[in-house]
Amino acid sequence: MQHMWLSLLSGLCLHLVFLCSAEEGLEFPNFDGKDRVMDINERNYKKALKRYDLLCLFYHEPLPANKGLQKRFQMTELVLELTAQVLENKDIGFGMVDSQKDVKVARKLGLEEVGSLYVFKDDRVIEFDGELSADTLVEFLLDVLEDPVEMINNAMEVRFSIKLIYFKAFQEASERFQPYIKFFATFDKSVAKHLSLKMNEVNFYEPFMEEPAIVPGRPLSEIDIVEYVTQHRRATLRKLRAENIFETWEDDMDGIHIVAFAEEEDPDGYEFLEILKDVARDNTNNPELSIVWIDPDDFPLLTTYWEKTFKLDLFRPQIGVVNVTDADSVWLDMSNDEDLPTAEELEDWIEDVLSGRVNTEDDDESADEPENPDSYITEDSDEIHDLDEGDNDDNYN
Amino acid sequence: MQHMWLSLLSGLCLHLVFLCSAEEGLEFPNFDGKDRVMDINERNYKKALKRYDLLCLFYHEPLPANKGLQKRFQMTELVLELTAQVLENKDIGFGMVDSQKDVKVARKLGLEEVGSLYVFKDDRVIEFDGELSADTLVEFLLDVLEDPVEMINNAMEVRFSIKLIYFKAFQEASERFQPYIKFFATFDKSVAKHLSLKMNEVNFYEPFMEEPAIVPGRPLSEIDIVEYVTQHRRATLRKLRAENIFETWEDDMDGIHIVAFAEEEDPDGYEFLEILKDVARDNTNNPELSIVWIDPDDFPLLTTYWEKTFKLDLFRPQIGVVNVTDADSVWLDMSNDEDLPTAEELEDWIEDVLSGRVNTEDDDESADEPENPDSYITEDSDEIHDLDEGDNDDNYN
Repeated sequence: MQHMWLSLLSGLCLHLVFLCSAEEGLEFPNFDGKDRVMDINERNYKKALKRYDLLCLFYHEPLPANKGLQKRFQMTELVLELTAQVLENKDIGFGMVDSQKDVKVARKLGLEEVGSLYVFKDDRVIEFDGELSADTLVEFLLDVLEDPVEMINNAMEVRFSIKLIYFKAFQEASERFQPYIKFFATFDKSVAKHLSLKMNEVNFYEPFMEEPAIVPGRPLSEIDIVEYVTQHRRATLRKLRAENIFETWEDDMDGIHIVAFAEEEDPDGYEFLEILKDVARDNTNNPELSIVWIDPDDFPLLTTYWEKTFKLDLFRPQIGVVNVTDADSVWLDMSNDEDLPTAEELEDWIEDVLSGRVNTEDDDESADEPENPDSYITEDSDEIHDLDEGDNDDNYN
Repeated sequence: MQHMWLSLLSGLCLHLVFLCSAEEGLEFPNFDGKDRVMDINERNYKKALKRYDLLCLFYHEPLPANKGLQKRFQMTELVLELTAQVLENKDIGFGMVDSQKDVKVARKLGLEEVGSLYVFKDDRVIEFDGELSADTLVEFLLDVLEDPVEMINNAMEVRFSIKLIYFKAFQEASERFQPYIKFFATFDKSVAKHLSLKMNEVNFYEPFMEEPAIVPGRPLSEIDIVEYVTQHRRATLRKLRAENIFETWEDDMDGIHIVAFAEEEDPDGYEFLEILKDVARDNTNNPELSIVWIDPDDFPLLTTYWEKTFKLDLFRPQIGVVNVTDADSVWLDMSNDEDLPTAEELEDWIEDVLSGRVNTEDDDESADEPENPDSYITEDSDEIHDLDEGDNDDNYN
């Protein structure tokens, strides 16, 4: 049975091989059927930890009795097998830890969440909380293989020895956040000047901000840096990415997310994103505000699901509030406007969201709010169902 | 048999469902097992063409006798089935045309290349020559569904009737290139002024160029525009994209590609890309030059394959010449430099490539060239094998 499953995996990365047989240089990998993922147990886990630069362990429930779940389980194994094959020359070990049979090993290794993937690098454990596809996992592991601090410019050798002690705190802090938060360093005066970076100073760039914040305190210890980054890592505007999609979604604000859809490659989407950035810059010090920006181009398989769930046309930019427990949502009505909202209009709307004036629970009570009942699309209203269908017909021809 | 294959497909998009069961809003699709892809034949092809906004036909060889190829074939079907499911509410038909059984239908529809996927929209046929994964195909079809000309700003209604006749030529030209080349129009004076666009003028923006070229002639006919775009569509710097990866790779320059690897999100990669753009801008009028830029982040499953085939470290930016018939290659040695090459140095190297002084056939004769034997890495040299391994050890820890 195992082998049949293995050969199937080739389909995970099936491409138009017929067309390019005459040309070389673009060979998408097909799984070769060789077992590379270990069954981890008490006898072999220590050896595995020592042997590889990285050890990547999938912590799973025992093989389920249900056939559908069994297949899903085997496909997980195959995603790991293909990843292992693609990264074969990189000194990464792959293994499975059974939450029932290997309960002792799991406790010793600190594995907690069943269904999670843990990466061991040196004495650190990094949890992978992204889309479990071979693409995303390969990219993630290649990022983890790199040094956690990247040097800007190579003039470092000259001065490296002088800065070693101070630099160590920075480097050790960086290891806590790899690969999710990038750490850069420079030992080059001109680079530092260009970045307005003072000696021994750590600047923190929040995504989409033009000006960095200066991490307070000097000299900075590892703990200072770790605490600052932990406290500030949830950005005012954060992009949804495959590599940590579930982590981001779980990090909601009191059960809701403010979600903005904008295609960066589309003129309207690009403009809307610029407005979002302005809003984020104006509100960077508001810890209550974090907007999740989704570029639909990054998640083609989710696009129609989102359109259906949220009753939206994703050919246009959108912004709304989503309740993460039931996916109930409310969206800013931008359909009748010729222009996108200004940053000020968007800030007014966001203020309404944060104050609770706009929320996902008022759908049925919208008649009770005399102020401006038509200005928000609520997903449960029949009126909107009809509108949606009309819109679709116009757009999709 | 069919059903087992169908249920397997769920693995094509397997995700950490265990983790996010408490939260809603991120449901990656699992194939539901329902057949949506039609078997196209002489009796039903006309009806299918009429019935849908888009008809998407896979033109294939008869089911092979070889079991491995059979599985691959079935996986293609399943990619189409998942795509059909995800796009279910979009009025797109999906079908298979057998190159042996349905030879007459294929001739009538103008299907030529076995293994290709053809999309019928109105009276046009668009060939898909990209990565045959559900992700890429869904995104491609969503692009094809859109209008081929996108309006910038919505003040168009006012003046639309006046410009209709002239605009028609532009719109019809746009249909020939959808979705590969984007067409935009505006009827808004301020937008036009901002773009320095004169009335009834068509500007052509080559990728990565700051200034557009003005398509010559006025009034422009559909044919004028089509001819100009056809002649200029191969950009001086073009990005490799999943949606037309094979088309780009097949469009080589006398059997070679100049290939540049640069990660846009990496500081070194970003800087190198800026240099490449400078070079492209300086040489935009040289029809001999077209550099294929590959961002390794876009193709995680190919990264290690490329590293192995070209003997490269893709954690760093690279540029080289690849012979597409045998994937033989020669790369500019940037490993000993602290800084990336300047635009001028890169142009000198490109000149050497275009003149044939640097080429993939000289590997064994490098000793005969006394000028500067060490300045290029050639893939067959043992010396480089050792260098590569050394590099890897340093980088991957």
